[in-house]
Amino acid sequence: MTTTRRFTNEQIDRLLRPKSVAVIGASDRHGALGCTLLNNLVQYKFAGDIYPVNPKRDELQGLKVYHSVNELPHGVDCAVLAIPRPFVLDTVRDLAKNGCGAVVIYAAGFSEAGEEGAKDQAELARIAEEAGMIVEGPNCLGCTNYVEGIPLTFVETNMKQPGPGQRSVGIASQSGALAAVLATTLHPRGCYVSTSVSTGNEAASGVEDYVEWLIDDPATNVIAMYVETFRRPAAFVAAARRAREAGKPIVLLHPGKSSKAQESAATHTGAMAGDYALMKAKLTREGVIFADTLEELADIATIAVTCPSLPGANMAVLGESGALRGLAFDLAEDVGLDLVDLNDENSPKIRAVLPDFVPVSNPTDITAIGLSEPEIYTNLLVELLEDDRIGSVVASIIQSDPITSEIKFPPIQKAIETSSGSKPLVFAGVDEGANVPQDYIDGLAAAGIPYFPSTERAYRAIARLADLAKRDLADRSGDPITLPALTDEHGVIPEYKAKKLLADAVSFPVSQFAPTAEEAATAAEAIGFPVVMKAQAAALGHKSDAGGVILNLKTADEVKAAFDKMYANVAAYNASIKLDGVLVEKMGKMGVEMIVGAKSDPEWGPVVLAGFGGVTAEILKDVKLFTTDLGVEQVKEGLLKLKQAPLLIGWRGSPALDVDALAALIVKVGQVMTGNPSIREIDLNPVIIHPAGEGVVALDALMLVD
Amino acid sequence: MTTTRRFTNEQIDRLLRPKSVAVIGASDRHGALGCTLLNNLVQYKFAGDIYPVNPKRDELQGLKVYHSVNELPHGVDCAVLAIPRPFVLDTVRDLAKNGCGAVVIYAAGFSEAGEEGAKDQAELARIAEEAGMIVEGPNCLGCTNYVEGIPLTFVETNMKQPGPGQRSVGIASQSGALAAVLATTLHPRGCYVSTSVSTGNEAASGVEDYVEWLIDDPATNVIAMYVETFRRPAAFVAAARRAREAGKPIVLLHPGKSSKAQESAATHTGAMAGDYALMKAKLTREGVIFADTLEELADIATIAVTCPSLPGANMAVLGESGALRGLAFDLAEDVGLDLVDLNDENSPKIRAVLPDFVPVSNPTDITAIGLSEPEIYTNLLVELLEDDRIGSVVASIIQSDPITSEIKFPPIQKAIETSSGSKPLVFAGVDEGANVPQDYIDGLAAAGIPYFPSTERAYRAIARLADLAKRDLADRSGDPITLPALTDEHGVIPEYKAKKLLADAVSFPVSQFAPTAEEAATAAEAIGFPVVMKAQAAALGHKSDAGGVILNLKTADEVKAAFDKMYANVAAYNASIKLDGVLVEKMGKMGVEMIVGAKSDPEWGPVVLAGFGGVTAEILKDVKLFTTDLGVEQVKEGLLKLKQAPLLIGWRGSPALDVDALAALIVKVGQVMTGNPSIREIDLNPVIIHPAGEGVVALDALMLVD
Repeated sequence: MTTTRRFTNEQIDRLLRPKSVAVIGASDRHGALGCTLLNNLVQYKFAGDIYPVNPKRDELQGLKVYHSVNELPHGVDCAVLAIPRPFVLDTVRDLAKNGCGAVVIYAAGFSEAGEEGAKDQAELARIAEEAGMIVEGPNCLGCTNYVEGIPLTFVETNMKQPGPGQRSVGIASQSGALAAVLATTLHPRGCYVSTSVSTGNEAASGVEDYVEWLIDDPATNVIAMYVETFRRPAAFVAAARRAREAGKPIVLLHPGKSSKAQESAATHTGAMAGDYALMKAKLTREGVIFADTLEELADIATIAVTCPSLPGANMAVLGESGALRGLAFDLAEDVGLDLVDLNDENSPKIRAVLPDFVPVSNPTDITAIGLSEPEIYTNLLVELLEDDRIGSVVASIIQSDPITSEIKFPPIQKAIETSSGSKPLVFAGVDEGANVPQDYIDGLAAAGIPYFPSTERAYRAIARLADLAKRDLADRSGDPITLPALTDEHGVIPEYKAKKLLADAVSFPVSQFAPTAEEAATAAEAIGFPVVMKAQAAALGHKSDAGGVILNLKTADEVKAAFDKMYANVAAYNASIKLDGVLVEKMGKMGVEMIVGAKSDPEWGPVVLAGFGGVTAEILKDVKLFTTDLGVEQVKEGLLKLKQAPLLIGWRGSPALDVDALAALIVKVGQVMTGNPSIREIDLNPVIIHPAGEGVVALDALMLVD
Repeated sequence: MTTTRRFTNEQIDRLLRPKSVAVIGASDRHGALGCTLLNNLVQYKFAGDIYPVNPKRDELQGLKVYHSVNELPHGVDCAVLAIPRPFVLDTVRDLAKNGCGAVVIYAAGFSEAGEEGAKDQAELARIAEEAGMIVEGPNCLGCTNYVEGIPLTFVETNMKQPGPGQRSVGIASQSGALAAVLATTLHPRGCYVSTSVSTGNEAASGVEDYVEWLIDDPATNVIAMYVETFRRPAAFVAAARRAREAGKPIVLLHPGKSSKAQESAATHTGAMAGDYALMKAKLTREGVIFADTLEELADIATIAVTCPSLPGANMAVLGESGALRGLAFDLAEDVGLDLVDLNDENSPKIRAVLPDFVPVSNPTDITAIGLSEPEIYTNLLVELLEDDRIGSVVASIIQSDPITSEIKFPPIQKAIETSSGSKPLVFAGVDEGANVPQDYIDGLAAAGIPYFPSTERAYRAIARLADLAKRDLADRSGDPITLPALTDEHGVIPEYKAKKLLADAVSFPVSQFAPTAEEAATAAEAIGFPVVMKAQAAALGHKSDAGGVILNLKTADEVKAAFDKMYANVAAYNASIKLDGVLVEKMGKMGVEMIVGAKSDPEWGPVVLAGFGGVTAEILKDVKLFTTDLGVEQVKEGLLKLKQAPLLIGWRGSPALDVDALAALIVKVGQVMTGNPSIREIDLNPVIIHPAGEGVVALDALMLVD
């Protein structure tokens, strides 16, 4: 995959690290966007030059005011347009002429507002491209660089500045409200934000561009995103891969799981929602962490930015109540967290730091003993943190009141300071709402321990991160397979042709195409009886419905009769369909029916879908998506997570099935997709999976080619 | 169902509304249980008499100290035992002699600690029963009556006293930690607790008893519970029903969904965990609201106690951002909330209060206009609150900072004060962590508006309550059906007998029992060919595995041959099984396979399980539990929520199936279970469901009878 960056960091620096800022529409009228913006810049002591622009004023906040954009010095880094919609286009033109490096456009009324707006937005994009200028928005809330103290937004901003080396979250969001909300939530938790960008309508630059900048930003350690539609999927996939290599996790909140959310996104941004499941499969494969809710987005980002490293698989918990053990088990199962098995026998070091009456367990219930012997918090947590079997540690604590906090918080904080490892330790309160002095919470955060008032949310967030740890993102198999014969084919490819094209990659029953009854009979004799006969025509989508499948033909005469009957059936079904002929095929052994399909999204590229077929396939949707770079082992792992997976591994005395062969087929189909970008769809349905060692056979095949 | 109360309210009053309290083991040693307890009583000015008992002291906190229990005045209401485990039993004996009404036992080391402890606990129970004395615990944290200011606990207590008529939550918990945690969480939300009881080992009284008292307690409006094991299920079912009739919702947190949680509960309380699914089915039917997590327990209780009435189905949302619309749709689908469809056409009154550029929708996105026109909050919310299509209203608000809160909170509060209805209005913050002055939050709570800092948790809690609103708890159908012939039967009842017993309730294929080959042939001729033959013996669990089922017999000779073969098969399979004979049965039409089963739990009573059968039945577990008092319509509703329900209503051209008949069968089986308490299990598998109007037929039947 080639990188598809549109802008250099230096270009985006003019927006996000400007040395000079023009405020177009600067004002001192309370509530005006140009007033709050100018206040923000002055209040937070923007270190560069500020050029207010207002035709009717000479001075604002002690600064010289320019009467028009054309009076501005040449080459201002960034101009923020706090002016009404009608003046935007001309102003941007003038700024481009004047060598301005970037503009921020707050005004709405562009692509989201109909045809006229879309036309103007296209013109904005054209001007930007011509001038090599960055355009943030329109219809956005601006951006804030917290590290350098540059608030280019009209939102009242809490300019909480990360210190040097302080781990921070970078935010790229298509919604300005969400970007602001996320900073509001992170700050009181002792988390820092490096730079936050809201992209609005993305006329000329989008989240994909800003993420590239954040990856290279030394002040950014974690990237949190809100996205309704990726306008440049391939560019984002490349960025996500680069973020992973740079060790900067991306946490993404993307509505669209439900169909109503997809409709809503279309209304909100004017952009069509893509295929959510496909997008998720692709990005999961690149190590992106999906948050399902705003709570999760903040919670996952909190852990990722506070802890020195991400949670691995297998969590261990220090608890203080037997009742919470049962709840922990239910919750862990619900959110998909593995609680590693700890007991007196397998954990002598942990055993050694516990009082006799406390058995080693997970969660370990230390009872109320910690109140009188607080060193037990330190000792137990250190042992858990240094245990190689454990990927993350949770202290699930009853906080009660300031006196209790005073007893419990310091020894917990001491644990991470004492431990030699860098494993995450998360504080998860049990009694949300307890009066805990803020100092203790800040102390934990500073020590690298995220603080959660309730256990459930901590578990959920850890589960998402542990899931990332379980993915093998390194194994990238599969060279593309090219189908040379494909070049002549377009549109729907009927079964007999598709089977021929795919013959090297997929195992099909022996078959022969026959355009006449005579040839069909000859073919059947060559293949051996019994045979099945299937009508062949690109226009015939559902052969069975049209009487186009006849099974179990046992003699040449039966074959000939079937041929005539089939032509009659199809003619009766739809007189306009002209058959190419029939496919005569060996009747195969039956078995469990699977489906293997593939499609190629013009933006996201190909993906393979596989799972259980049969009557209830569409009801149960017991299928999984596989990206085309997965190896056989990874595909097998996915198949064994299907709901009906017990059928694959041998159920109630029936033999284990050939999952290896099925996985190999899925990999092959993926290779065919990557090798032949003109293929839109492949549909193998059903694929019969035989007992282990006996392979898989696709009974039908259909292709759609550009 | 008859009520099964063990204690009168007056008996429990002596524990929860005592006029005199003896503190056995009173002390002034900091950290001693008897010290904190005495401090609590004095600090909160217990209005009755306090009798400290300590052999070595004459005065504590200005109170006269008694040197022994025997010196106490006769008939003290409640004695709290803050003494070591070894002294408990004798002290309780003495207190019983002395006419003490109730004792609280903090000490652990009873049934949870092995055989000896269990024996002593049984003795406690015996003494209590003999004396008619209430025993709370042992192994408990005591109880607190917040209304009358009586803290009989050694936990530092925030005695937040509800005012007269102030809606409050009563707490009954088997875990003292959980009871304390819940109060800690509710209080800062402006919620009040009436009385909280932790029951520990429940030697002589349990959550079932205290719930009865809470139902009659005028200060309690909502009951929140944490339970690991109901020791008296029937009593709790009766209490739950009475709570519902009294309009006091019960919210229950009960670990045990996962098998590990069930094991944990057994270790923690020494009691075996019951069947979680069965318990949940029974209690859901009685209107109990299940919380899955501690967060949910507090959140649901918060809404139930703060709002004047419970949320109904169909929620409406006031929002302020387009981005949050998509998230709302995803979340609503995820938690099972219905967002009622609102638009400009169907909602003229709502249309009338919105600016032109804001379309009516749900969520309605009012944009940032509320900042300049805050009356829109009041106007829109009042319209939503007064709209009959809507069951609850959420204000999903970006709170930002104190200035923004000042603009938004008062008009929201005004909405509920202006509205004439009593529909719940819930405030759900979007930007959790925003700096909102506590006054505003308290103001909302006082006005009956629960405050949630994040939207997701509010939605989840409302979903649980809306689900309750959707249950029809009134319809209670089904007179018991008695099977007179059952009295002679015990143990496993083989198919031919079970089919005879159930013949009036269940439709089976025509069949005849035959003990000889000759009689089998005669039976087959009477029935009409083809027939199926099935081996019959109580000891033969899996007929098919033993070669005990032979299909499609077409002549009398085939039947005779099959008879001999079957006897040979079974003998080869297990020589110890002696067949009663065979069942000769008409071959029926095939169709979709369902299963209908029933079991009767000795504690909880009977329940019917029904759903999809076939090969994957045990893998997909696509079944539901039905209580035996449901009507046909309610059962149908449940069946149509099965995952594979599309197969029932007609899938891809296949006909709709006879769901009415299946529902009727389930109701009938329930009636049989209630009419014959000696039946442990009925198993009808498979039950073939035919097209609508053609009924259902059970092909096999098995019963287990006491």
